[in-house]
Amino acid sequence: MKPSGVITLLTDFGLEDPYVGMVKGAILARFRQATLVDLTHAIPPQDIAAARFWIARSYRWFPAGTLHLVVVDPGVGSARDPLAVEVDGHLFVGPDNGVFADVLAQPGPQRAHRIEPERLGIGELSATFHGRDLFGPAAAVLAASSDGDLERIGRRRELPPLQPPTRTGGIEGAVSGCVVVVDHFGNLITDIAADQLSSDKTCRVLLGGQAFAVVHTYAEAVPGQGVALIGSLGTLEIAVRNGSAAELLGVGAGAVVSIEAD
Amino acid sequence: MKPSGVITLLTDFGLEDPYVGMVKGAILARFRQATLVDLTHAIPPQDIAAARFWIARSYRWFPAGTLHLVVVDPGVGSARDPLAVEVDGHLFVGPDNGVFADVLAQPGPQRAHRIEPERLGIGELSATFHGRDLFGPAAAVLAASSDGDLERIGRRRELPPLQPPTRTGGIEGAVSGCVVVVDHFGNLITDIAADQLSSDKTCRVLLGGQAFAVVHTYAEAVPGQGVALIGSLGTLEIAVRNGSAAELLGVGAGAVVSIEAD
Amino acid sequence: MKPSGVITLLTDFGLEDPYVGMVKGAILARFRQATLVDLTHAIPPQDIAAARFWIARSYRWFPAGTLHLVVVDPGVGSARDPLAVEVDGHLFVGPDNGVFADVLAQPGPQRAHRIEPERLGIGELSATFHGRDLFGPAAAVLAASSDGDLERIGRRRELPPLQPPTRTGGIEGAVSGCVVVVDHFGNLITDIAADQLSSDKTCRVLLGGQAFAVVHTYAEAVPGQGVALIGSLGTLEIAVRNGSAAELLGVGAGAVVSIEAD
Repeated sequence: MKPSGVITLLTDFGLEDPYVGMVKGAILARFRQATLVDLTHAIPPQDIAAARFWIARSYRWFPAGTLHLVVVDPGVGSARDPLAVEVDGHLFVGPDNGVFADVLAQPGPQRAHRIEPERLGIGELSATFHGRDLFGPAAAVLAASSDGDLERIGRRRELPPLQPPTRTGGIEGAVSGCVVVVDHFGNLITDIAADQLSSDKTCRVLLGGQAFAVVHTYAEAVPGQGVALIGSLGTLEIAVRNGSAAELLGVGAGAVVSIEAD
Repeated sequence: MKPSGVITLLTDFGLEDPYVGMVKGAILARFRQATLVDLTHAIPPQDIAAARFWIARSYRWFPAGTLHLVVVDPGVGSARDPLAVEVDGHLFVGPDNGVFADVLAQPGPQRAHRIEPERLGIGELSATFHGRDLFGPAAAVLAASSDGDLERIGRRRELPPLQPPTRTGGIEGAVSGCVVVVDHFGNLITDIAADQLSSDKTCRVLLGGQAFAVVHTYAEAVPGQGVALIGSLGTLEIAVRNGSAAELLGVGAGAVVSIEAD
Repeated sequence: MKPSGVITLLTDFGLEDPYVGMVKGAILARFRQATLVDLTHAIPPQDIAAARFWIARSYRWFPAGTLHLVVVDPGVGSARDPLAVEVDGHLFVGPDNGVFADVLAQPGPQRAHRIEPERLGIGELSATFHGRDLFGPAAAVLAASSDGDLERIGRRRELPPLQPPTRTGGIEGAVSGCVVVVDHFGNLITDIAADQLSSDKTCRVLLGGQAFAVVHTYAEAVPGQGVALIGSLGTLEIAVRNGSAAELLGVGAGAVVSIEAD
């Protein structure tokens, strides 16, 4: 695979401190020509489920051969593997703690390698900031290479396990899922994929004791009214036109969503 | 016109989610060498007045030939035109909903073209995320071209209408305007341009029942005291030295401001 | 010195408004090939102590020859010098108000020059936005040059004074310092350097009437319990594993920290 030279960053570091900037410095020190793009740094601290959802929905918009650095790492300093994986023509670097579970659910050939600090010329590793001291340098080395060969940064290992979406409750026999993230606009974004909705019969979406009609675009909705639609991420969303569904419905991440035929 | 290869972004997407990152991915997928610069993504959701004010005050600091992508788009999915305009040696891409009204008030030759998805090789358009699926790709194609020719992305159309500043109240016969935005420092930034102030007589500025002296720099003010001055954007601001005018005066966007001779 | 072409930015401008974007525009207008990296723009307004701490802990991760633009400038429009300094193989541009005090505490040859607007072709200087109108252009000219020679932007002057850390209270004869910043994770980061801790005897850290054991990594701590450790910045931090020390201890910047032998 030929790396594109683009490196994206998705972390829970926030933007209040220069932590993200330090990671970028560590990358540029090894790969001066990198093109760096922030996905987001506002993943709630240590929220692996949000990181895993967003990276799988974001990577495909970038040029093939882009490297995606994901650092949401509650286990920093413990024994979890530092990991590099190749999926769907893209490269991913981050901790082996589930952040790549949804990426690995994509079809096609995949491989995973363990990042070995000594191959990167890193002697003693800091205990608390692997984004700057290990993952950033590994990302730089891979993205700067002519072939993106994962062998460069460590030996091959088995793929991390796929993890089914965590779901509790829901209606017996019905399609159900949960709200994974609430976005900036207050849209309630679920893990129910577009192809789980039947296209030949109408249905309605149940959430928090309320039922919502399924529409195709915000413009079909009455302002202020809640509707369900397949959003731009390819999953079911509950939204309020020109308003915040999260606020109006008093619902957040984790809420159970079910679909039933009309 | 020769594009500079720089693309700025101004949206109401926020930075909590990877939406801005996805737009950048869609741009880089078509124009790998683009230089991307964030103006801001904290425009209040769907606040066209704030977007329109800021883009007109920001674009001129960039190299000639820079493309400015403005996506504040409450009408996404409805019939409003997707638009590209050329003004004052810069390119602008965004919805035809008034966001370019202040830019178009600049002197000099101007032209507007409707963005046609089929010219960009875009078949079916997503219903809810034109920033990623239409405006970003159009921006990439224009900024990557050798001539910035708008014909490339669609046919010429008439210029969008200029809209006068919205003003209510104020003193008969006096110069008046309103607070358009409150900035990070709590400065109250108005739409009253520097040349609307008489330079040969002293005057004072009225806001919320209080009168403020006009000074030339923050350093002339007593810390904690409100003053009026022509700020770095070329418009009248009410500010408090080493403090927040918005907080101390309890005033926000929309408040009426008048000027009277001393 | 050969500039790397990388320019970092650290300001108190926030990201709500396009002020940072305008500074970047002013840089790109003079140095189109600059690589721009945000350190942070969330320094509390006019908090020179926070800016001074962070820039000294951040610059070293970037390639040698990187230029660091620091604009936290409560005295804008007053007589304080605009300054460029060379320290430890890096360049720094910003106001002479103490923001570089910790950078200048680094060993090695150092020099300082006063930025003279006329050398940059700048006639009248705006009164309120030197980041865009003076410091940005000066940074661009230096970073774009082949030699990084500070003479290019103004005459040499004496180095700014080093300032000792501000400390009040603490225990007679003991190592003491204070919390300088609270980071995104709620970690309480102090100005006590790693080498001030004795490595051959165990000690404990006192803060707000409580004592904390010193550990090497978060993983050694019980979740929810406060511990002290040398963090990734090379200074003493008080942290709570998987939690916010600031919140749990009710402590913020300025709190006194002492170390005593066990």
